[in-house]
Amino acid sequence: MEKIRICLIGAGRVGKVHALSLKNNIPEAELVAVVEKDEGAVQRFTKEFGLKKSFKDHRDALEWGEFDAIIITTPTFTHKMITVDAAHAKKHIFCEKPMALNVEEADEMVQEVEKAKVKLQIGFMRRFDRGFLAAKQKVERGLIGEPVLIKSTTRGPGLPPEWARDVSKSGGMLAEVGSHDFDTLKWFAESKFKEIFAFATNYKCYELKKKYPDFYDHAIIIARFQNERLGMIDIGCPVDYGYDARTEILGTNGVIFVGTVEDNELVVCTKNGGAASPLHSSWRNRFKEAYIDELKYFVSIVKGDGEPLVSGKDGKEIVEAVVAANKSIQTGHSVILSP
Amino acid sequence: MEKIRICLIGAGRVGKVHALSLKNNIPEAELVAVVEKDEGAVQRFTKEFGLKKSFKDHRDALEWGEFDAIIITTPTFTHKMITVDAAHAKKHIFCEKPMALNVEEADEMVQEVEKAKVKLQIGFMRRFDRGFLAAKQKVERGLIGEPVLIKSTTRGPGLPPEWARDVSKSGGMLAEVGSHDFDTLKWFAESKFKEIFAFATNYKCYELKKKYPDFYDHAIIIARFQNERLGMIDIGCPVDYGYDARTEILGTNGVIFVGTVEDNELVVCTKNGGAASPLHSSWRNRFKEAYIDELKYFVSIVKGDGEPLVSGKDGKEIVEAVVAANKSIQTGHSVILSP
Amino acid sequence: MEKIRICLIGAGRVGKVHALSLKNNIPEAELVAVVEKDEGAVQRFTKEFGLKKSFKDHRDALEWGEFDAIIITTPTFTHKMITVDAAHAKKHIFCEKPMALNVEEADEMVQEVEKAKVKLQIGFMRRFDRGFLAAKQKVERGLIGEPVLIKSTTRGPGLPPEWARDVSKSGGMLAEVGSHDFDTLKWFAESKFKEIFAFATNYKCYELKKKYPDFYDHAIIIARFQNERLGMIDIGCPVDYGYDARTEILGTNGVIFVGTVEDNELVVCTKNGGAASPLHSSWRNRFKEAYIDELKYFVSIVKGDGEPLVSGKDGKEIVEAVVAANKSIQTGHSVILSP
Amino acid sequence: MEKIRICLIGAGRVGKVHALSLKNNIPEAELVAVVEKDEGAVQRFTKEFGLKKSFKDHRDALEWGEFDAIIITTPTFTHKMITVDAAHAKKHIFCEKPMALNVEEADEMVQEVEKAKVKLQIGFMRRFDRGFLAAKQKVERGLIGEPVLIKSTTRGPGLPPEWARDVSKSGGMLAEVGSHDFDTLKWFAESKFKEIFAFATNYKCYELKKKYPDFYDHAIIIARFQNERLGMIDIGCPVDYGYDARTEILGTNGVIFVGTVEDNELVVCTKNGGAASPLHSSWRNRFKEAYIDELKYFVSIVKGDGEPLVSGKDGKEIVEAVVAANKSIQTGHSVILSP
Repeated sequence: MEKIRICLIGAGRVGKVHALSLKNNIPEAELVAVVEKDEGAVQRFTKEFGLKKSFKDHRDALEWGEFDAIIITTPTFTHKMITVDAAHAKKHIFCEKPMALNVEEADEMVQEVEKAKVKLQIGFMRRFDRGFLAAKQKVERGLIGEPVLIKSTTRGPGLPPEWARDVSKSGGMLAEVGSHDFDTLKWFAESKFKEIFAFATNYKCYELKKKYPDFYDHAIIIARFQNERLGMIDIGCPVDYGYDARTEILGTNGVIFVGTVEDNELVVCTKNGGAASPLHSSWRNRFKEAYIDELKYFVSIVKGDGEPLVSGKDGKEIVEAVVAANKSIQTGHSVILSP
Repeated sequence: MEKIRICLIGAGRVGKVHALSLKNNIPEAELVAVVEKDEGAVQRFTKEFGLKKSFKDHRDALEWGEFDAIIITTPTFTHKMITVDAAHAKKHIFCEKPMALNVEEADEMVQEVEKAKVKLQIGFMRRFDRGFLAAKQKVERGLIGEPVLIKSTTRGPGLPPEWARDVSKSGGMLAEVGSHDFDTLKWFAESKFKEIFAFATNYKCYELKKKYPDFYDHAIIIARFQNERLGMIDIGCPVDYGYDARTEILGTNGVIFVGTVEDNELVVCTKNGGAASPLHSSWRNRFKEAYIDELKYFVSIVKGDGEPLVSGKDGKEIVEAVVAANKSIQTGHSVILSP
Repeated sequence: MEKIRICLIGAGRVGKVHALSLKNNIPEAELVAVVEKDEGAVQRFTKEFGLKKSFKDHRDALEWGEFDAIIITTPTFTHKMITVDAAHAKKHIFCEKPMALNVEEADEMVQEVEKAKVKLQIGFMRRFDRGFLAAKQKVERGLIGEPVLIKSTTRGPGLPPEWARDVSKSGGMLAEVGSHDFDTLKWFAESKFKEIFAFATNYKCYELKKKYPDFYDHAIIIARFQNERLGMIDIGCPVDYGYDARTEILGTNGVIFVGTVEDNELVVCTKNGGAASPLHSSWRNRFKEAYIDELKYFVSIVKGDGEPLVSGKDGKEIVEAVVAANKSIQTGHSVILSP
Repeated sequence: MEKIRICLIGAGRVGKVHALSLKNNIPEAELVAVVEKDEGAVQRFTKEFGLKKSFKDHRDALEWGEFDAIIITTPTFTHKMITVDAAHAKKHIFCEKPMALNVEEADEMVQEVEKAKVKLQIGFMRRFDRGFLAAKQKVERGLIGEPVLIKSTTRGPGLPPEWARDVSKSGGMLAEVGSHDFDTLKWFAESKFKEIFAFATNYKCYELKKKYPDFYDHAIIIARFQNERLGMIDIGCPVDYGYDARTEILGTNGVIFVGTVEDNELVVCTKNGGAASPLHSSWRNRFKEAYIDELKYFVSIVKGDGEPLVSGKDGKEIVEAVVAANKSIQTGHSVILSP
């Protein structure tokens, strides 16, 4: 059995998550090279993962070309360029969320990928989480009737990276964090967003406001879909207590809850502590298996079977929703999306 | 010990809840009369509660006057008139939510009550619920830092009464059901509403749409307070699965959850049923103790101690928020409230 | 409607619980007198409950006789004498658990009560708890098949009263605390105990060991019923963390859990505290409604309808089991009970 | 990096679990051969795992010898012979629980392994479970004071394999299923068992009783440790509802719960189903990560670092406890173990 050869673009936090998945859990693939500008990161990375090849520019890696697919984990503003270049080089692409800065970029990515006939999968790993998958199945089997309202919450202990704090350049926290929530809404609503209204506030990061006047650390959004289903999102970063991702799907006959604040390891009861369970500490732990499973799936389609579960078109719709929500925050008005 | 004598105005569902509280759980007070137009209801009621007096019109009851206080449980559009008449007759008033149809009515009620120096308490019983009270205490003790976002959900198995389905006459479901959620938001935000945006849809009651074109059975709302705290509300009636009232208060240092879908009686595990807990069947059961405790409190202030925990001014702010949310649904725009 | 008149024997902790139930929640009955040796307790009690009559000896109360029923909350070693005297005086009897010190006493009580044709109800209030009742119903409807194993845990923050620490005089903690667990086992097993084996240890009360060499503060018991069903009990007092009463019923097709350590008011999530719920603080709170409901039921049968849900015969079987378990602890052998 | 080479003895259910762990999750080791008598199983296995070598007898594998360690998953009565042979061949040994049929076998295994200076780890994977590990840490940090009582429950949907149903040959269900519970008790009690008493019953497998008169499908055990701590175990197989493994550790200052019946994927609320969570379906899923982690640990010590977390001496004490519990069931008396 020949292993799928993968080149990782970006050796940051999520880059490392994928590298570890490849090393420890996906024997069908192997990481063969990394592209990273930061010299120190390159050295640590090639050592930890036993890599022989590294590049500072993705174009050099593509020129070398001894791999089947790339994983893009660099800042959002680089996604389009790298994807288009990789498509031209006939490499399959796994691209982290958010797919792109705006709809135009996303459109171009989809076009070039289609032309090149390579696979493009977007990194919405929640769709591979055991709980979310079970919820989706139950909804499809009609267990709660027709979905009416989808609610999604994401909060985390840390701030997005520096480059993602400038809303104008990155889409800000709605793009970095909220993309997952928008994708969850869309996945369960099975429709395109029709109208979005949002409020945002900066509660905890007063300093950042000086550098980035548009910066917000908490946002709440309500949405209406083309098929009249409704959606609600709230996101907050940083929150002190832990990592918190929960979704609720209300249907005409019932409701489903996915995700809990507790990580359900154990309960400790003491006089002063009450009955206490540990909280999730990070998205890395909460979605550990989902990160492995999305990459396993990508590897399997690169080997020839099936289509991406999360396509470029899916990614594009989320970009569109994020852009609309940011516009609502900036204008104070609701934003109507084209059908 | 002289018992506080109470006259109940309205012998419907919530009227009976209060009558039962008085009979079974509040020995300091006694129900002495009922005002009700429906002849059959009067007979059943006077028999069940051993009442000697009944009236068809609240003015006749006030003229008789052998009681200390009234409990108003009639339709919203009667609240102002009855409150004003009772204030003139120097009777203390417990008035069910929503307080009134609009701010003008609420203003008049507050004025007349103040002039007459009688007590007026609004029926937001959640403020007396053990869980909500504990949450409030913990927030006030700073356990979760400064509140940032308050979320409230209410869903129930039944529709509001017929008269409450015409949004123009009653405020509709936002008034009948959502009042509680608006009050919870305000209570924890400790501020006035500044801006409100809402979507509403009719998912389950197509027939009602013909008779009441503005009718909706599900609504979602986001709000911003004068102190920049945020709020989210979603309500739905009827939902098939049970009665569901949950609140979440996110602070700068933690988060508090009040209320669960399960009523925590027991868990039954079977192969096909999974691990299943019963759901709350009704607001009557979920807030059983809170209904008793709000009335106990009212009786205690009628006897001379303290001020209403939920005042006419509180009630008025909620009326204002409900009116704004309905306007947002009708216009499609967010509504800015006066500070 | 004539109220049932009740005389309370014993003005201690559980005596007060019953007095409060009568005052605040059972309008069909009224407390008319108290019997209590402690002068100070009598004064506080008659004042708090507005009583006109008090006695130091139950025989004086019986001689006065202007009541329908008595509630016995005095130490176990007095139960037989008071019950027999009350039966002779044709008073109905609500007797706290444990019913008696030994089977001979229990037998005499049952006989005299039957002769006198008065009602005798034993204070196993868990049978009136909403959760336990729901569990019983579900078992009876066959939801988990045939019961196979019943497990019951009771732990509490405080020690039994002084007189109950001497195992030889009172049955010790197995009688004071464990009676509830034995009754739960029997109720769900629907059979008589056949064999009992127990271990006990003194972990926390070393001082008491000096005064009462047989004293233990933790005990574990396994039992086999005549119908071959199995049972497990563990009890511990004092435990630091709170009041904890949980039951598990394993059937051939499923399992039911009743009771949780958490009191389910709310969940507070903070970085250091995890996701924490308050614990039950006391049996008074945990079984607040059950204490009211068992007395309501007793009042209803005194008025003429139906038989005790927990009879003298039930109480006697529990006494038998407690005696057997204590014997097992003392001898180190399992104890076989007569069929 | 040279991979640790492993030979698997036994290609049954748990053999496959370990083979999958090696293939998918432990890149530091590789499975190189399998020993299995069943021809069909061998073919399926070598194909699925791409093995070039297979043997019908473990002695042939040891003679070939091109591996560092073996994993024993054959029936209990073969453990001693294979372990002793492997020790003589200087192979490291991972041996499934229960370690052996009786203390004499276990003693011999420990001796030969010590003489040969090879590593021997027993397959009590619960010690590697995230929840159990967290509990152990918290106990060691003194969070609940000194442990007083340890309770462990294991139930599963299936019966042990045929050879394990004959209590005289295999130790029966107490050995096959209950070994885990005995080990958990010992691990938290940090002491040797002192006295054990048990009841067992056959509730569901009447047919098996004919073939194996000693067969039982449910058993309950209480135990006392040398350091006076207490223990309770209940096991049942088959149970219809799912796989259920829960542990409770009561300390002088608090209590810890590990494991839940729910697998916490999601909650579905419907009118008839209540609030329902899926149950664990199998030990494979419940302890999926623990099975990987125990083998990872074994591989790491074979590479040279550290001692087994679960040693032959640990395994022997559990064998001793199982033998005692079976003796208690057969004799009806408690069994005292040598200190």
